[in-house]
Amino acid sequence: MKSKQETIQIEIPKPLDQLSPSEIERKACIGKIMTYTLKSLTSTFVDQGFQWLLPVALSQCTDPLWPDPGASIDKRIEVDIYGKPVRTTASMIIHKLVAASTAYPKLFILSPNIRIEKAERAGTGKHIYEFTQLDFEARDATSKDIITLVEDAICTLIKDLKLDMKGELTTLCRCDTLKAPKAPFKIYDRVELEAKYGADGWEAGIAKETTQPVWVTNIPREFYDYEDFKTGKWDNYDLFLPQYGEVLSGAKREWEYAKISKKIERDQIKKENYALVLKMAKEGRLKPTAGGGIGMERLVGWIAGVKHVAETQPFPRVPGTVNEL
Amino acid sequence: MKSKQETIQIEIPKPLDQLSPSEIERKACIGKIMTYTLKSLTSTFVDQGFQWLLPVALSQCTDPLWPDPGASIDKRIEVDIYGKPVRTTASMIIHKLVAASTAYPKLFILSPNIRIEKAERAGTGKHIYEFTQLDFEARDATSKDIITLVEDAICTLIKDLKLDMKGELTTLCRCDTLKAPKAPFKIYDRVELEAKYGADGWEAGIAKETTQPVWVTNIPREFYDYEDFKTGKWDNYDLFLPQYGEVLSGAKREWEYAKISKKIERDQIKKENYALVLKMAKEGRLKPTAGGGIGMERLVGWIAGVKHVAETQPFPRVPGTVNEL
Repeated sequence: MKSKQETIQIEIPKPLDQLSPSEIERKACIGKIMTYTLKSLTSTFVDQGFQWLLPVALSQCTDPLWPDPGASIDKRIEVDIYGKPVRTTASMIIHKLVAASTAYPKLFILSPNIRIEKAERAGTGKHIYEFTQLDFEARDATSKDIITLVEDAICTLIKDLKLDMKGELTTLCRCDTLKAPKAPFKIYDRVELEAKYGADGWEAGIAKETTQPVWVTNIPREFYDYEDFKTGKWDNYDLFLPQYGEVLSGAKREWEYAKISKKIERDQIKKENYALVLKMAKEGRLKPTAGGGIGMERLVGWIAGVKHVAETQPFPRVPGTVNEL
Repeated sequence: MKSKQETIQIEIPKPLDQLSPSEIERKACIGKIMTYTLKSLTSTFVDQGFQWLLPVALSQCTDPLWPDPGASIDKRIEVDIYGKPVRTTASMIIHKLVAASTAYPKLFILSPNIRIEKAERAGTGKHIYEFTQLDFEARDATSKDIITLVEDAICTLIKDLKLDMKGELTTLCRCDTLKAPKAPFKIYDRVELEAKYGADGWEAGIAKETTQPVWVTNIPREFYDYEDFKTGKWDNYDLFLPQYGEVLSGAKREWEYAKISKKIERDQIKKENYALVLKMAKEGRLKPTAGGGIGMERLVGWIAGVKHVAETQPFPRVPGTVNEL
């Protein structure tokens, strides 16, 4: 069953060359908010001692994106270079685990992710087949540490932006409707939301109901998120924005060989694709970390009040629509 | 004939998981210099009124990288998504021309570029098959404007970095050897360098000779760089670092339909791959711009004094060597 929000069809943003002068003005406004947001968040992370890594585009190993109840992948891209198969980056989660365990205890990356979503998601307004995550990870951090870090970063951003970008917010009719959130944000357990909205409706339900950003914890998904085998609870956390839904996905991570190995088997994922992380875990060289990834287009989409998240992209990446640029 | 520098074989940087504790310390130092450099340059561009765009990974249209005397492409990556062929980004030059002509008169992008260089370039120390450009473009700018902007950005960066990163520069033995450059940098015409070092040796020659960053202008290459048909001179500019060679490639751009069309034909490039930019030029909607792209790994490689530019990458991308991450 599709959630109600997925069936709403939103107009597909046009490419740059087809915009009218007033649409160009609006695009420029959203662009200024993106610039402000990128500068604010990168500054916050650098000031907090995070190292800024550059992204990778092609790797032998990438995020399995499985099992993930939200995934809808039309195609996984694999090509050969120098005689070896590589995949386009779905996320840099595995890179982050290894980097945070070795030379970069606190790190972030502006990481372009490719997820060729099914074309039927074109009109949800929430899905694009290329997006950029501000992807971060910190050694020995707890979920609480990350939640506090993100709340501070977002509250500071919105507070400053409402002062400095008044003209742009006015043009976008967001001056009054964009409220500066207050930390701490409310935290829900996914189980209680499922009880209220159903297993397929809780994401849309909480996004529709809340007027503040809220956290949802304990979401069963990929092997690298920490799961307490005794209680069955997952130590992860997603941030949901009012109306706009999930904007951040994060977790405390697994680092013990036996658990990672068991979960990869349980998920029926190819072990050979995760040989390095398994080897490091077996040798005790994988460290406990926690982190997350902020979807930049969704965050700016919320701030700017767009109908379709692709409006925040200079070159829209709407599922099913391939433009020349 | 190969230039002398291309035949020197430099040790290939190891992946993160194979580094010794002292190698990890060195890697962390280089990482801190990368972070500092990214923060400094992005701040400079934002403060100068440039909008910060997010990159694209897959497009129908990308840089032909032809004719370019420095190109050595083993393979061009093309895949199908939603029934259409797309290429991995070789550079966002065409995207920049369209963006700067419409909603973003001044823009920059931290753009991951994929260029599957021939494996024989593994040991040059200068080539990697994935790198990130700080790629920028400004409407109505002249070459002089861009040269001044870049000189200011780099002089500010090195001056500040020598004060703020003393510990890291000491660890890397660069405290004394890294000299803060002084603007204006010397400008050479490629013709005079060819007369001195030969057509195949001038790039290595000027890099070896100079002790300061220098500009080289008038380099025949891709259709989008401005060429004066009367004099045969190209209005472009590359920045060369002492010992490390080319770190920035830039130009004033073509915007007139007749010239672009003629040059694409002359270069025997497929016109259908550049249909949009031709259409916009024909309709007078392509604007005069100038810009460039700074190779972040090469810039930081010079600052840190590395032997191989891949040392600046958390996940080395050495031609011919594909690691798991």
